[in-house]
Amino acid sequence: MRMIRSLCEKKFRDELGLFTVEGEKMVAELADSGLETVMIVRREDVGEKVMERISSCNTPSPVLAVVRKPAPASHSASGLCLALDSVRDPGNMGTILRLADWFGLDCVFASPDSVEVFNPKVVQASMGAIFRKKLIYCDIAAKCKEFRAAGLEVFGTFLNGDNIYEASLPAEGLIVLGNESNGISNAVASECSRRLTIPTFGGGAESLNVSVAAAITVSEFKGHGGWK
Amino acid sequence: MRMIRSLCEKKFRDELGLFTVEGEKMVAELADSGLETVMIVRREDVGEKVMERISSCNTPSPVLAVVRKPAPASHSASGLCLALDSVRDPGNMGTILRLADWFGLDCVFASPDSVEVFNPKVVQASMGAIFRKKLIYCDIAAKCKEFRAAGLEVFGTFLNGDNIYEASLPAEGLIVLGNESNGISNAVASECSRRLTIPTFGGGAESLNVSVAAAITVSEFKGHGGWK
Repeated sequence: MRMIRSLCEKKFRDELGLFTVEGEKMVAELADSGLETVMIVRREDVGEKVMERISSCNTPSPVLAVVRKPAPASHSASGLCLALDSVRDPGNMGTILRLADWFGLDCVFASPDSVEVFNPKVVQASMGAIFRKKLIYCDIAAKCKEFRAAGLEVFGTFLNGDNIYEASLPAEGLIVLGNESNGISNAVASECSRRLTIPTFGGGAESLNVSVAAAITVSEFKGHGGWK
Repeated sequence: MRMIRSLCEKKFRDELGLFTVEGEKMVAELADSGLETVMIVRREDVGEKVMERISSCNTPSPVLAVVRKPAPASHSASGLCLALDSVRDPGNMGTILRLADWFGLDCVFASPDSVEVFNPKVVQASMGAIFRKKLIYCDIAAKCKEFRAAGLEVFGTFLNGDNIYEASLPAEGLIVLGNESNGISNAVASECSRRLTIPTFGGGAESLNVSVAAAITVSEFKGHGGWK
């Protein structure tokens, strides 16, 4: 049980190559995920106290699975993909994966300093999307170069870009999202071939949450792009 | 200091009519908010240990303000507004307020069983939007009736509605968002005059996070609606 508890920490997830999944629904989805389930612990077998000890949720769920991390995936510069440039909040990362799953994006890339995808809060917020979407850690500036070399555009969201509601958006390309506080880094910004802006409408807010900006941008590409 | 610490709990916020705001940026924005600041506590004055004790953040910020709750606001059935039907997660509520601020919505209504707007996590996630946007707790089904009586439409997001990307969306109306797990309640659903759907694009996800659904819906109304 101590081993399971240790998986709340990245250090031990890395060392053991394992992570945890909690909740009936997510554990049920594991069966179709192709991932190797090492162990399943149920409250009815071990009792409430043990579940509280091994869970990383505030309210421990009735079931927890220990799962082997998949081998790193790969993805060529093709399709419509997201690139996360230093997204640090696990809730945002999980929400963005869920969004990528809903909109059938081809892949999500993340810079090595982004939050780890096997963090229990990412797993939870993704609502199972981590079983279905490829998340690849890599150098985002280099990935932008690859997309451009493949003849595709690289889109960044900035405060001074083209109005996204009036922009012509292709079916393929790379959409870059930046850090919660600092936005897209300079190294990555200089690799963006097009700058997009979600205009404000008389509001006092200075910015949008990154998963909200991701949602609006991806929605524009899938709902209003492609055929423009 | 014990009084400040107690404001992490709703019971004491209600009893004292006070709440806390943390962070340099948010405390600076208080000055223009019209709210009464009762006390400001700075790390440089009280030390790290005290800040840790009174803060509700994992990483205590260098400054914390104790603020008097404003009197409940009111808003007639007009403009473009959101209605939250039992939104429970503080991060979602804060993110939705920030979104409402960015897009200049007129008001946000919330059912009494939604999370409390002065919860420190809501305040934090709103990034100051709680100082600028009206958030009114009320019966959502009754509010829907009011909007319809004023000749406006009430929009709900459902899995079996009209494709939002093809729908004609007016400049004014009420957009209803439902609970994280259960969606819009039956009592409120029956008051919606139009059902909208954000279509999925071959993904495996069963649903979207409520703040993501709010973002996409509001973005459609403001970016593509109004003049249709």
